[in-house]
Amino acid sequence: MKGRFVVTVRNFAEASQALRVADIIEFRLDLFPSYPEYDRIQTEKDNIVTIRRKEDGGQFDGEEEDRLELLRKYSKYASYVDLEHELDDEVFLKFEKNNIVESYHNFAETPDYDVLKDIVEGRRGDIIKIATMGRSKEDVIKIMKLLTEYDNVVAFLMGRKYSFTRIISLLMGSPLIYCSLYNAVAPGQYDIYTARKILKMI
Amino acid sequence: MKGRFVVTVRNFAEASQALRVADIIEFRLDLFPSYPEYDRIQTEKDNIVTIRRKEDGGQFDGEEEDRLELLRKYSKYASYVDLEHELDDEVFLKFEKNNIVESYHNFAETPDYDVLKDIVEGRRGDIIKIATMGRSKEDVIKIMKLLTEYDNVVAFLMGRKYSFTRIISLLMGSPLIYCSLYNAVAPGQYDIYTARKILKMI
Repeated sequence: MKGRFVVTVRNFAEASQALRVADIIEFRLDLFPSYPEYDRIQTEKDNIVTIRRKEDGGQFDGEEEDRLELLRKYSKYASYVDLEHELDDEVFLKFEKNNIVESYHNFAETPDYDVLKDIVEGRRGDIIKIATMGRSKEDVIKIMKLLTEYDNVVAFLMGRKYSFTRIISLLMGSPLIYCSLYNAVAPGQYDIYTARKILKMI
Repeated sequence: MKGRFVVTVRNFAEASQALRVADIIEFRLDLFPSYPEYDRIQTEKDNIVTIRRKEDGGQFDGEEEDRLELLRKYSKYASYVDLEHELDDEVFLKFEKNNIVESYHNFAETPDYDVLKDIVEGRRGDIIKIATMGRSKEDVIKIMKLLTEYDNVVAFLMGRKYSFTRIISLLMGSPLIYCSLYNAVAPGQYDIYTARKILKMI
């Protein structure tokens, strides 16, 4: 089990606490009270910069152009930039000097395996993150198959009932597990203390 | 998660401790210091009677006829009798008044999904237990598929690396999880305290 623990933070107070327990800090800048100085996100541990749009479950509702400009500026101080799967190739090209987490979210359902397979095979990120709403045991199988067939895939089901897929995902070779510091930032997310405990015992 | 916790015991001292924490006691009579009076296995909780042969990883190396006669006598005081998948239909018929756990063990490997599927579809037990040696992520998928497609299936991979399949199995609908009281009786088994903790946290 070589996966690394990501903690998603919404302010600098959380970030300084997360630094003690996480392997990687994800700055959800759309959830920050305001956009900080660019270099303030630089930390002694690896970091991911994410500015999530309203339509993807985040708080950013400005112009897309502005969002990309923000991402570009923060990217100088980031280990990874999170770019949504829906973005055009040309956006990905603009970040070609960065390590990319390409993220696919689906809050309604888990699409057919072939759809997920196409997303993974067509990836433009170093890591592809697939987070979909879990509805059935078949959905668990889809996720497991992705993790079996491909590397550098973070795949899990959202929703409390399928939280356990976040844990199995790591055991099946996922490079990252996304955790909260205390309260879940995403549906079914574990806090890092619980996730570490479970993975130690399991 | 409706699965029940089975604790496998090797003597009466273990049995009395197990009664406090387990939902079901599995009497591995082949591991007992001697064969007890038949009615001594009757407990206030459900129980499973198992006499495992040497060839299946147990300690019984007498005549098969004697083993079946022992099982038959203990079966009067058992909630379930464990009968190996390899036994003939006529043996299963002799126990038709009992609830049966039909058990398939493979300490070498996990056969192809179609082989496992045939075993499950041809089952003569109320519960079918599939315990096979885990070697790859593909083996995890096979187990998950069985649990998705069929009910009353206990399926997991043996070996420490794949212990987690015992936990997921329960989350995927398996009616039972087999635990030890302290030390693993089978490769990769959890003690019941750990299993309960993980399942509470996960």
